[in-house]
Amino acid sequence: MSKILLSTRHLIILLLFSCGSFSQSDVKVLDDIYKTSLTDGNSYEWLDFLSNQIGGRLSGSLNAQRAVDWAEFELNKLGLDEVRLQPVMVPKWVRGNPEFAYVETNPGKTLNMNVCALGGSVATPPAGIKAKVVEVSSFDQLEALGRDKIEGKIVFYNRPMDKSVIDTFKSYGGCVEQRYNGAFHAAKLGAVAIVVRSMTLAIDDLPHTGSMSYGNLSVKQRIPASAISTKHADLLSSMLKMDNSIKFFLKQNCKQLDDVLSYNVIGEIKGSEFPDEYILVGGHLDSWDLGDGSHDDGAGCVQSMEVLRLFKILEIKPKRTLRVVLFMNEENGLRGAKKYAFESRKNKENHIFALESDAGAFTPRGFYFEADSKNFDQILSWKDLFEPYLIHFFELGGSGADVGPLKNSVNVLAGLKPDSQRYFDHHHSSKDIFSTINKRELEIGAATMASLVYLFDKYGLVKASNP
Amino acid sequence: MSKILLSTRHLIILLLFSCGSFSQSDVKVLDDIYKTSLTDGNSYEWLDFLSNQIGGRLSGSLNAQRAVDWAEFELNKLGLDEVRLQPVMVPKWVRGNPEFAYVETNPGKTLNMNVCALGGSVATPPAGIKAKVVEVSSFDQLEALGRDKIEGKIVFYNRPMDKSVIDTFKSYGGCVEQRYNGAFHAAKLGAVAIVVRSMTLAIDDLPHTGSMSYGNLSVKQRIPASAISTKHADLLSSMLKMDNSIKFFLKQNCKQLDDVLSYNVIGEIKGSEFPDEYILVGGHLDSWDLGDGSHDDGAGCVQSMEVLRLFKILEIKPKRTLRVVLFMNEENGLRGAKKYAFESRKNKENHIFALESDAGAFTPRGFYFEADSKNFDQILSWKDLFEPYLIHFFELGGSGADVGPLKNSVNVLAGLKPDSQRYFDHHHSSKDIFSTINKRELEIGAATMASLVYLFDKYGLVKASNP
Repeated sequence: MSKILLSTRHLIILLLFSCGSFSQSDVKVLDDIYKTSLTDGNSYEWLDFLSNQIGGRLSGSLNAQRAVDWAEFELNKLGLDEVRLQPVMVPKWVRGNPEFAYVETNPGKTLNMNVCALGGSVATPPAGIKAKVVEVSSFDQLEALGRDKIEGKIVFYNRPMDKSVIDTFKSYGGCVEQRYNGAFHAAKLGAVAIVVRSMTLAIDDLPHTGSMSYGNLSVKQRIPASAISTKHADLLSSMLKMDNSIKFFLKQNCKQLDDVLSYNVIGEIKGSEFPDEYILVGGHLDSWDLGDGSHDDGAGCVQSMEVLRLFKILEIKPKRTLRVVLFMNEENGLRGAKKYAFESRKNKENHIFALESDAGAFTPRGFYFEADSKNFDQILSWKDLFEPYLIHFFELGGSGADVGPLKNSVNVLAGLKPDSQRYFDHHHSSKDIFSTINKRELEIGAATMASLVYLFDKYGLVKASNP
Repeated sequence: MSKILLSTRHLIILLLFSCGSFSQSDVKVLDDIYKTSLTDGNSYEWLDFLSNQIGGRLSGSLNAQRAVDWAEFELNKLGLDEVRLQPVMVPKWVRGNPEFAYVETNPGKTLNMNVCALGGSVATPPAGIKAKVVEVSSFDQLEALGRDKIEGKIVFYNRPMDKSVIDTFKSYGGCVEQRYNGAFHAAKLGAVAIVVRSMTLAIDDLPHTGSMSYGNLSVKQRIPASAISTKHADLLSSMLKMDNSIKFFLKQNCKQLDDVLSYNVIGEIKGSEFPDEYILVGGHLDSWDLGDGSHDDGAGCVQSMEVLRLFKILEIKPKRTLRVVLFMNEENGLRGAKKYAFESRKNKENHIFALESDAGAFTPRGFYFEADSKNFDQILSWKDLFEPYLIHFFELGGSGADVGPLKNSVNVLAGLKPDSQRYFDHHHSSKDIFSTINKRELEIGAATMASLVYLFDKYGLVKASNP
């Protein structure tokens, strides 16, 4: 059955030859890559270990160091030309004891609320904070209310993600300022704390953490920031409509400690023809602490490792130098990405292509690219090669946070785009766990990345013609 | 954000006008359909009730009747022009007590195995069956072994689904003969029972049931047939390689009872211009009994109901008669589909288009079609309309079991094609449950069906030109 199917696949693609700039051998290589990832892949076993034996790995934590050691060990087993650790100082924020919150309708009448501290938040006083609540859905609304209405209150940001948008990352982008900048804006008007509706389209009981910033606020001005589950956000909102004098109690004892030493983990296969041209694949090794970081971004790490493993076991010798980078501290600082880009510029490394996977282990649909029109045309000429694998999405419009700093005027960046419908059900919550990973979706993602890397290695960049 | 996004969507599609045969108003209608399904849909709430309040609904069971009553009640609430029940006699097979199986390496040394009876199987004797095991991977291999090696033994069919194939339904198609015809072939050679590797690509602990047939075997010749979890299939296979004298014990007390009366549930909106041209959407209301039938096929039922609901609340008045049919007994007899097709032929109903959803509630990718080339060309001319919703798969090659009997030389049949990677993790097992449904994936599926139905209603069939 499979053999017949592949012949049909080949036939269809061969018929399309006139449109695409690829060869029959490319069809065969992609077939080998997908087949091997699905029948002899190692990404799922790697992720099982990273998620279940190590677990959540917040920057600066013991688990983050265990993940660094593990990744170095596993890459060394692949027989690469070089494996090394790149030192980088990272922030160390600790959650402390589990957070606790409730709504008080009358003295002694309380209802517990599911909350978690946002990453980077300060603690409440040891006895917690209790205050009235002002619900807002935008910074404009907050400003309009002004200091009079906000001072001494807890600001409750409750603008939900837009359900009508197909790409959930776009809905996320339309809301996440509440989480990232909400404390800054509220503190400036004298609020004592903020509670933010969790960034998810699911209506459930899980608070979702994530990074936040106090901007230029002094240490004294900083107020505690937390996320609340969407069910409890809806409930709190309903209760406020009935009685806006109810009080919210919040207690959290998270803390920002001094920066600590950590590492990006780097492995590479030296290019046979153009060793000074680099092709990078990567994800980030750190994760939030509530789940085990399987989707965000254990998946991207093991898929990137699998790209190099597939080249090794299929004996594809890259012309360019192929490098996997597992970045540290994407979640709350991007220090690993910045350090890598800094060192790479210092050493005049020419990254012609960098591909990131950081959008979950779900069934892959294609890629987002940052590329000029000539290079994007070349990429589109490869599109038919991917059709048998249901990879159809090739669009300009982005890449990823960790590879972003590598952009220059000539190179190409890309981000794997998995199906996004389920992603924010898990993102930054206790539901980002290994049991929600589908082995095949993870493996098809790794094969899709390896296939694009193979094509970029074979055909290289299209150089801009002279004006 | 959403508004800007939609303008871009519209713009992109308008630019593509030259290729597709659709109008600007079609772009707007599809946008309304998707938005309404995602923001004001009812499919998820319906499925919650069907799955969690009714549950698994095997043909002829009390739950199947409760599902019929519920569906009739819910369709009546939609204000359709007609809701009715179509009587059909269905088989009634009952599982009885939970099955029990173990491997015995030495007398008294046993290891329990996860099994379940296949639908339609006979029971073992009350005290169970214990026999040596012969593992085979094909009927050819079974025939080659012959009666000498098979008589008195339990035949263990262990050909796994092909992991290298992208479309998991194709892998399923390459294996399911073991489950459906395995008992027939083994019994003819004197086997006392069969155990079939579960039809899933996951390696886990769940047995997956499904229909089987004894072909022309007499009642006396029929042998018990069961499925075993993939983990235990692998374990049993390993144990057999070490010692082929180990014995397998199987006990099940399932039973085929007399046929009982059940119903297809039918609702319709009368066409305003061509009431005698029918457009059908449907799924099957019955399910297996191990899970709650959320994916197979509660999802298809509520999505089909949602198509008519979307037409009603968006006030789209169909030109043709739009009919939802919730078929009874797809799983083990297809009696509902046969009855519906028989009555429809008898009443000379002209079904120009019939669309089935029976491949799970996962993120929709497109459709399979049965259509002549002129109609398929028309369908392809609509493809760009679906691009903003990431619906990209439009291929000839099938439709669905329940609409299949409606095919004639001029009409078009189709089946919704959701992403298939996760489907067989759940299919016919205790893991086909509501908690594995993503609300948005279900809703986007319903909107995708409603959009295609809208286009078929508006443009109708392309009539074959005279030769």
